Amino acid sequence: MIKVGIIGATGYAGGELVRLLTGHREAEIVWYGSKSYIDKKYADVYRNMFEIVEDRCLDDNMEELAERADVIFTATPQGYCASVMSEEILSKTRIIDLSADYRLKDVSVYEKWYGIQHKSPQFIKEAVYGLCEVNREAVRGARLVANPGCYTTCSILTAYPLAKEGIIDMGTLIVDAKSGTSGAGRGAKLPNLFCEVNENIKAYGVAVHRHTPEIEEQLTLASGENTVINFTPHLVPMNRGILATEYASLKKDVSYKDVKMIYDSYYKDETFVRVLEEGIYPETKWVEGSNYLDINFKIDSRTNRIIMIGAIDNLVKGAAGQAVQNMNLMFGLKEGEGLELVPMFP
Amino acid sequence: MIKVGIIGATGYAGGELVRLLTGHREAEIVWYGSKSYIDKKYADVYRNMFEIVEDRCLDDNMEELAERADVIFTATPQGYCASVMSEEILSKTRIIDLSADYRLKDVSVYEKWYGIQHKSPQFIKEAVYGLCEVNREAVRGARLVANPGCYTTCSILTAYPLAKEGIIDMGTLIVDAKSGTSGAGRGAKLPNLFCEVNENIKAYGVAVHRHTPEIEEQLTLASGENTVINFTPHLVPMNRGILATEYASLKKDVSYKDVKMIYDSYYKDETFVRVLEEGIYPETKWVEGSNYLDINFKIDSRTNRIIMIGAIDNLVKGAAGQAVQNMNLMFGLKEGEGLELVPMFP
Amino acid sequence: MIKVGIIGATGYAGGELVRLLTGHREAEIVWYGSKSYIDKKYADVYRNMFEIVEDRCLDDNMEELAERADVIFTATPQGYCASVMSEEILSKTRIIDLSADYRLKDVSVYEKWYGIQHKSPQFIKEAVYGLCEVNREAVRGARLVANPGCYTTCSILTAYPLAKEGIIDMGTLIVDAKSGTSGAGRGAKLPNLFCEVNENIKAYGVAVHRHTPEIEEQLTLASGENTVINFTPHLVPMNRGILATEYASLKKDVSYKDVKMIYDSYYKDETFVRVLEEGIYPETKWVEGSNYLDINFKIDSRTNRIIMIGAIDNLVKGAAGQAVQNMNLMFGLKEGEGLELVPMFP
Amino acid sequence: MIKVGIIGATGYAGGELVRLLTGHREAEIVWYGSKSYIDKKYADVYRNMFEIVEDRCLDDNMEELAERADVIFTATPQGYCASVMSEEILSKTRIIDLSADYRLKDVSVYEKWYGIQHKSPQFIKEAVYGLCEVNREAVRGARLVANPGCYTTCSILTAYPLAKEGIIDMGTLIVDAKSGTSGAGRGAKLPNLFCEVNENIKAYGVAVHRHTPEIEEQLTLASGENTVINFTPHLVPMNRGILATEYASLKKDVSYKDVKMIYDSYYKDETFVRVLEEGIYPETKWVEGSNYLDINFKIDSRTNRIIMIGAIDNLVKGAAGQAVQNMNLMFGLKEGEGLELVPMFP
Repeated sequence: MIKVGIIGATGYAGGELVRLLTGHREAEIVWYGSKSYIDKKYADVYRNMFEIVEDRCLDDNMEELAERADVIFTATPQGYCASVMSEEILSKTRIIDLSADYRLKDVSVYEKWYGIQHKSPQFIKEAVYGLCEVNREAVRGARLVANPGCYTTCSILTAYPLAKEGIIDMGTLIVDAKSGTSGAGRGAKLPNLFCEVNENIKAYGVAVHRHTPEIEEQLTLASGENTVINFTPHLVPMNRGILATEYASLKKDVSYKDVKMIYDSYYKDETFVRVLEEGIYPETKWVEGSNYLDINFKIDSRTNRIIMIGAIDNLVKGAAGQAVQNMNLMFGLKEGEGLELVPMFP
Repeated sequence: MIKVGIIGATGYAGGELVRLLTGHREAEIVWYGSKSYIDKKYADVYRNMFEIVEDRCLDDNMEELAERADVIFTATPQGYCASVMSEEILSKTRIIDLSADYRLKDVSVYEKWYGIQHKSPQFIKEAVYGLCEVNREAVRGARLVANPGCYTTCSILTAYPLAKEGIIDMGTLIVDAKSGTSGAGRGAKLPNLFCEVNENIKAYGVAVHRHTPEIEEQLTLASGENTVINFTPHLVPMNRGILATEYASLKKDVSYKDVKMIYDSYYKDETFVRVLEEGIYPETKWVEGSNYLDINFKIDSRTNRIIMIGAIDNLVKGAAGQAVQNMNLMFGLKEGEGLELVPMFP
Repeated sequence: MIKVGIIGATGYAGGELVRLLTGHREAEIVWYGSKSYIDKKYADVYRNMFEIVEDRCLDDNMEELAERADVIFTATPQGYCASVMSEEILSKTRIIDLSADYRLKDVSVYEKWYGIQHKSPQFIKEAVYGLCEVNREAVRGARLVANPGCYTTCSILTAYPLAKEGIIDMGTLIVDAKSGTSGAGRGAKLPNLFCEVNENIKAYGVAVHRHTPEIEEQLTLASGENTVINFTPHLVPMNRGILATEYASLKKDVSYKDVKMIYDSYYKDETFVRVLEEGIYPETKWVEGSNYLDINFKIDSRTNRIIMIGAIDNLVKGAAGQAVQNMNLMFGLKEGEGLELVPMFP
Repeated sequence: MIKVGIIGATGYAGGELVRLLTGHREAEIVWYGSKSYIDKKYADVYRNMFEIVEDRCLDDNMEELAERADVIFTATPQGYCASVMSEEILSKTRIIDLSADYRLKDVSVYEKWYGIQHKSPQFIKEAVYGLCEVNREAVRGARLVANPGCYTTCSILTAYPLAKEGIIDMGTLIVDAKSGTSGAGRGAKLPNLFCEVNENIKAYGVAVHRHTPEIEEQLTLASGENTVINFTPHLVPMNRGILATEYASLKKDVSYKDVKMIYDSYYKDETFVRVLEEGIYPETKWVEGSNYLDINFKIDSRTNRIIMIGAIDNLVKGAAGQAVQNMNLMFGLKEGEGLELVPMFP
């Protein structure tokens, strides 16, 4: 059994890690780290876990945790993981960081968009961007994995094959994304109150959202072209789910079949990516609770653009599920272990 | 592998059976019956099942199905199962009926509340009321199980220990229940439209809801007293979940500890019933997607009443989950097989 | 024009006062009091009021406000209004208190249920309980009106005629109430986050909710019998609305027509109380945004109980609307001025 | 008093017309037309109108209606209004058509996108596109007004000033729109059931939605350039509201102030258009229940694009509210009569 430690176990992503790992046959959680709830029973924080998890929350002592865990998930605010990282820790355990600390290869981009100094840039190079479908081999050997963001997982994978194959003009890419409210975290903030979110939709972080450079970096790598995009996230009155609607001009004269063949060539063997049938567009409900990414597209000959649409559960494929998928790869387990989650409908 | 046939596989309860059985290690679905969608791919009706279920929907030919399946789940409208039941079918396969056809032992009560004639009353006596926690032994040997209703499962089990132990005055029992909208089924009816349900709560079936006699019959059996109750269901703007708030006068002078001890004596070894800690009242979100029933109570010395509260996921413990639990018992499997579902939060 | 001051103008009830008074032809708001947002533009706190309200928030200086306003609404936490009340203030202006400070005639009951000391019990006797349909005449002359609670308005008026006429056994009354989340206020608290409330229903304050003694006191006055009830509130995933489902044993052998006649005799001339047609039960959506209370009932001969159901918009008839109704009475205006609000559907 | 007839009074837009006209001081409804509910009490179809509307539904006899009404609102399916229109009717009454029949000036575009033959193309030229802020003067004298679509009202007005002033490259315009579910109408269809919409977001009508040519035609008129756009609507789990997020490349080097000045020059005297303060983006909740359109924008110098965002209540400014605004203009009333609706929050 792989011994797992979680730092930030009482946030929504942390809670989802607990849900998934509870059903994992090769892993067990040995440390429920939560600065806010030290000594409190975990099941008192998340009462769905009553009689399922008996443990109490612990602090976030990385040194001690490194001794006891084979892998540590850090589901913590930006900056935390970078501030505690050290060669000693990495020599004893492996890290899957759900924050943004090691996602961006260019530290100046990180510091500009996140507005904080990076405390351990020396590990950025080593860190593997844990987008399993793209970086599978690199993840296998990694000590330090940067688990992608929720919006970014969905946005990148939805456009990836076409970016890689040079089908779309990267200078025209626009990502209009919609997210459920769990993406905003469990902090008690006025804008996340039920009455503020319910019966409402809004854009936020317009032209300044931090997931922008992450998408840009990965699609630049994929396309070989310097990619600068518009990314606009929206808050939707639902708990879970991200839908990304992406627009780009076509560089080549392609048919539906051409594009379908490209998507299939990238994803037909991928357990967790489903390219839908023609005319059927993704809905977040169809992936809820599961690790799937559903994708489809439409070519609009009137505008010579392609509209690509992707949907994930932000807490699963967008966070905890992908983190477990990374863990499975790192430890040579079946990639889908613990992730055989049938989407819940309704 | 147990071969399973489902009639009514495209309703919400049928869909949940498919979700649960897909993860069951000892059963496989061989027949997706759906009169409305014959020959249509099941995954075209429930697109969450894309690339998970490849089968097409079949008709509801019970005779043929009885040849091919070890067990048949009938998730069908009232009257259907009774109309097709025969000794021949029962000699070849087993039936778990999710409709009300065999739940009530008194056929005249059935005919009065449901307003239809019972087509095969000769099987009522044999049918076992499949409330596993109460009738476990009888279920094991059964050919025909009447799977309890959603409201009734929650309402009965929440009051059962106190009814059985003679703690509450059965003449005073009032059940005020609240349900998510999936309980209303997938029929395209105006009152179930999003805009009619959202931002709204209402009572319905006031003093005439069909689950009333089912609760009464079971609690009469438990208490040994003729039990006539008020049962008021309410429609809540959420997909899943039932909360039953139950009121009864106390017949004995009991303390919190006394009552807690009674509940524990009935349920502490039950995998799927969780009696919460003092002062913590059930919330439907804590059981969502799982087979749990959460219960707690409060003694009000001011009124000499006890308030009992129970919560389930109406599609799981209130329908498909309990049906699978019954199947497991009938076939000598581990009772929780396929039901190790950690509640999803949020 | 009546000059109105509001203390607590930035809570949800305060915001609703502003919405209603903006459309009032005989009143104008001269003071938007909000301790949390002093000097901030009101429309920056509630952006729906952009270009409608130009004022900035002020502090809660009651003395100064008393000089400037003809009437002050205090939409403040329990204890505040009692702590600042004085004969001087009452000699200069009138007060409509939306908190509970002057609702209960027995100060010891107040202090027990609210857990705080009452700072100005000398004004309790003078204070008029502002349930307009019951205390209309007393309200007209009042200097100090205690605006009823949201649950209590709905619960009391729904049972009032039958309590008053001696039709129901007051010892058997049970009120099972369901409320939208705006009733919990605009404080940034974890239990009120969207993801905690959405797709969830729960009971809270079981047997200890503070609205209990208020309902009891008023129904004791109405019935002439010492009334002790069970009151159980539930939180529903919607913004607005309260539904009260009330159960009581009948003391007399009455028919539907008898009871309908009683309700009509009390309410047929009431603008804001609608007794629905037989078999039609209130839904909160039908009163949303309006000052209506919808009522209906069902006699259950099987149990000899009557089920009474009432629905209001908790922020209108349950708070701000009723407060404006009280103001209209106090100042001799048309009772419905500013309250001609057609319920919004959907 | 202006005598108003409504055909299609029992759809959601028709219901909203009734709500608004009930509060209108210069108009009264004389005909509640509803083919589906002939002879039924209107308040039995929309119970929020109990004791407010006493009338019964009538058929859709346009000839008779033309005799009795000064103006007829047709809130009917596409094709109906065109099929009954005649010179005789227009000589007796005025028509405000909420369907698409007279919105598009090019009948072949209408027939292609709507897939039906236009039955009275001879009136297309006369019909005035009732976007009040753009065509105010033409509306005043009109006999036949084509009330704009919900998506289109929001999409056009949000981009209009920049299109008109030549600031944006019309060949790059992309409109990503999100709508509440009332936009789908009150028909009992499976995709609009609560459980299908709740906790879900999806795109629909991708690249083929019928509001596309309407937006294109109006922005072509405004900009003087042939405008072909991508328009992607999404269904959001809320009752009301449309948010349009629009992207376009800038043709000129403009600053925030430049663009703000342009918007202000078009809209600062418009009662129902609010250009928000810098950095504040529209939320549908801020306009709910009102006739406002809220707009703001963000220039992204990284991509040389401008993001424009608009929000309306789809049933008010997107349908019934704008229809009443048109009526007010046609009859020389105050443009805002009956529309002094303060947005409801929460």
